[in-house]
Amino acid sequence: MSSTRDIDALIELMAKLPGLGPRSARRAVLHLIRKRALLLTPLADIMHTVAATARECLNCGNVGTADICDICESEKRANGELCVVEDVADLWAMERSGVFHGRYHVLGGTLSALDAVGPQELRIPRLVDRVQSEGVTEVILALNATIDGQTTAHYIADQLEGQVRLTSLAQGVPIGGELDYLDDGTITAAMRARKNL
Amino acid sequence: MSSTRDIDALIELMAKLPGLGPRSARRAVLHLIRKRALLLTPLADIMHTVAATARECLNCGNVGTADICDICESEKRANGELCVVEDVADLWAMERSGVFHGRYHVLGGTLSALDAVGPQELRIPRLVDRVQSEGVTEVILALNATIDGQTTAHYIADQLEGQVRLTSLAQGVPIGGELDYLDDGTITAAMRARKNL
Repeated sequence: MSSTRDIDALIELMAKLPGLGPRSARRAVLHLIRKRALLLTPLADIMHTVAATARECLNCGNVGTADICDICESEKRANGELCVVEDVADLWAMERSGVFHGRYHVLGGTLSALDAVGPQELRIPRLVDRVQSEGVTEVILALNATIDGQTTAHYIADQLEGQVRLTSLAQGVPIGGELDYLDDGTITAAMRARKNL
Repeated sequence: MSSTRDIDALIELMAKLPGLGPRSARRAVLHLIRKRALLLTPLADIMHTVAATARECLNCGNVGTADICDICESEKRANGELCVVEDVADLWAMERSGVFHGRYHVLGGTLSALDAVGPQELRIPRLVDRVQSEGVTEVILALNATIDGQTTAHYIADQLEGQVRLTSLAQGVPIGGELDYLDDGTITAAMRARKNL
């Protein structure tokens, strides 16, 4: 069907997005075609804009549209706290919680011998530089509670040992969590870190 | 964060797609930014093309890039069979199965008193025209097995009574279906339509 070639190509590209398979890509494309003026054209426009302007912050690795991101630019956030995260998505999650008012450092992944990811690939040397040059007093290692995440946290802790206060996120029962559905590791961590009422 | 305004706008539009919520839209946008050259730019280009060229077939309601779609154009498919479906997605599903070699008629929904959808909104007059003008010998009502779908099927059957052979898809146990997980209605339909081995 040559006259639907473009539509098929659009479906194929949409199906490459995380969270969309062939079936949901087809649904999405039909929805886009129906809402052409309201959704399809604006989406294409904004995609072009983002493709042209999005870049990684040269300082922290956050995604933005300037060489240095708003968080690194903001004087208000220069409070000496630096939160190390694996990924931009983690930075965004921290920002949504609104609990942290310092700056970030996005590693861009975790150390992995299998995938040949070493410290150089992860902006770890840049992190060490920043701790020395930006007057950082506390580095919060907000890495994922996975084996790779924790290995990376240990490596960074070794690099920064003695230079700065090092902390990590508390582990325990998530808000709204039911013990029955939690894994043993979480229960063990929560038990060991129990607090006085 | 003014410098991420475009990225936020992209996330907001992506979250309007069926099957994507705010969280998966964020994941998708980060993925798009990472794969800018391979995915984001091509996707924006093809969206512009589709926005400019996609249209409904004037004859059957299928989505394509010409006034008359490939299926309506094809002489090979003029075998007198006309398959009536609710939606373009249903037409695509039938085409994927490869079982049907006639032409389609897309209603664009079902009759609904509540939503004020009458025969005029559903290309039903056009269907009656086509049956008379295209030498149709059989109309297959492939409407969804919902109350609205079946109401619409009955209405169409009334309109075409005596003019043409009318059939509907068989109802029964789906391939790979387990009786234990099927609803009572399906089991009843399958039992009533049981076949000799």
